[in-house]
Amino acid sequence: MTASGNFDLERITTLLEGLEETIIFKLIDRAQFRHNPVVYLPGRSGFTGAARQSLFSLRLRFQEEMDARFGRFCVAEERPFCSRLPRPRRKVHLPPTGLCIEDINAVNLSAKIMPAYLGLVPLLCRKGDDANYGSSVEHDVYALQAIARRIHYGALYVAESKFLRDKRLYTRLMRAKDAGGLLALLTRPDIEDRIVERIRAKVCSAQARVNRTSRHVVDPDVVLGFYRDCIIPLTKEGEVKYLLNRTPDPL
Amino acid sequence: MTASGNFDLERITTLLEGLEETIIFKLIDRAQFRHNPVVYLPGRSGFTGAARQSLFSLRLRFQEEMDARFGRFCVAEERPFCSRLPRPRRKVHLPPTGLCIEDINAVNLSAKIMPAYLGLVPLLCRKGDDANYGSSVEHDVYALQAIARRIHYGALYVAESKFLRDKRLYTRLMRAKDAGGLLALLTRPDIEDRIVERIRAKVCSAQARVNRTSRHVVDPDVVLGFYRDCIIPLTKEGEVKYLLNRTPDPL
Repeated sequence: MTASGNFDLERITTLLEGLEETIIFKLIDRAQFRHNPVVYLPGRSGFTGAARQSLFSLRLRFQEEMDARFGRFCVAEERPFCSRLPRPRRKVHLPPTGLCIEDINAVNLSAKIMPAYLGLVPLLCRKGDDANYGSSVEHDVYALQAIARRIHYGALYVAESKFLRDKRLYTRLMRAKDAGGLLALLTRPDIEDRIVERIRAKVCSAQARVNRTSRHVVDPDVVLGFYRDCIIPLTKEGEVKYLLNRTPDPL
Repeated sequence: MTASGNFDLERITTLLEGLEETIIFKLIDRAQFRHNPVVYLPGRSGFTGAARQSLFSLRLRFQEEMDARFGRFCVAEERPFCSRLPRPRRKVHLPPTGLCIEDINAVNLSAKIMPAYLGLVPLLCRKGDDANYGSSVEHDVYALQAIARRIHYGALYVAESKFLRDKRLYTRLMRAKDAGGLLALLTRPDIEDRIVERIRAKVCSAQARVNRTSRHVVDPDVVLGFYRDCIIPLTKEGEVKYLLNRTPDPL
């Protein structure tokens, strides 16, 4: 496939839907453990030599250091949460993305995804402490990475795709650095409503046959609300960032 | 809860069902990527300084080294695949398990789980190569860990629970080192059939609303077959190992 095929809107929509299913599976899996608020408290990790970090932040850093060595962040839509990560130890051969941006980290929403996710956890999980600290932070990291991938993939590819379909209109707003105008142009409330309703159906069906004694069933409205109030707005914020940082020629 | 509560068979069954759902979610997530056989080939990882390993075996080792530092393998049912792992850097406070075994690694089925899983992947995923190597091995490791946890949890806790319900009969077979007799005594075909049929229903419902353009739908019979031919027999093999290594007094 040529890079231009990356911007076929139907292909992007299908990929986004796959990422959405992954998010749902990972949130359901996090919710089998209680909130376990202690894992988010600095200095309470029980880790030697980590007086100021939480177990959660340590796990995220260890995971991202490993992932960085495996080349994860060579992929455009994989933007890390941590800084000062090691270089890849692996030669990653990637086809050209066709994205037109010099510094891909200009579209890094991680600093906003993090507090949004931490606000989601107490709504997603049962209250309290079940001592499953290691498992909780492990699943937090998997869910966070899936959410970040969805947001950054949407931000980059949807923005470029929409730009290519209406270059003149977008270019005018981009030159004027009109973030509000770009946001309005990118927004499609009918599609957002459709996504949100689809989420509800998927969260319900994914849990239809689970054993409700062993597993906390996730409230579909919680996932739906997170999509509506966090994932979709942050994706659009990323789209605006991409367009305002877009270079005229493909990398 | 006291350690003896760990051996309530109803509680164990419920926990096993939760672990089963986690396995299903993780297998469905692995199957969004193609088989990508190159990731299992030694010397083809693209990693500097790793001429003899595969990308998969490298990922598994890095993951288990991280997990070991976080104390994962302090938990009885978390048996690693790799040897020579680092010590935990975290103080893990665990309630007594009540298990009666000196060396928990006497019940480590990992060497048999690995080839069984690698045989499952080509049945689970679409054939071919989609270049998603990093994601494939990442999801392989998550699925493998979920499978190993289910098998080892079952092996340890089901065996002790059954022993406690019928001490005299089990003790006679254990003293005679009668592995075949123990296996026969542990086997309940009616329950195995029920588990396997439940798997089919769960695999179907978990995927009922996924987008079939973006996501390969996992054949329920493949997961069901893996449960019937691998997870259940290996769990029972582990139960026999536990009983043959059981010490008379709680640790």
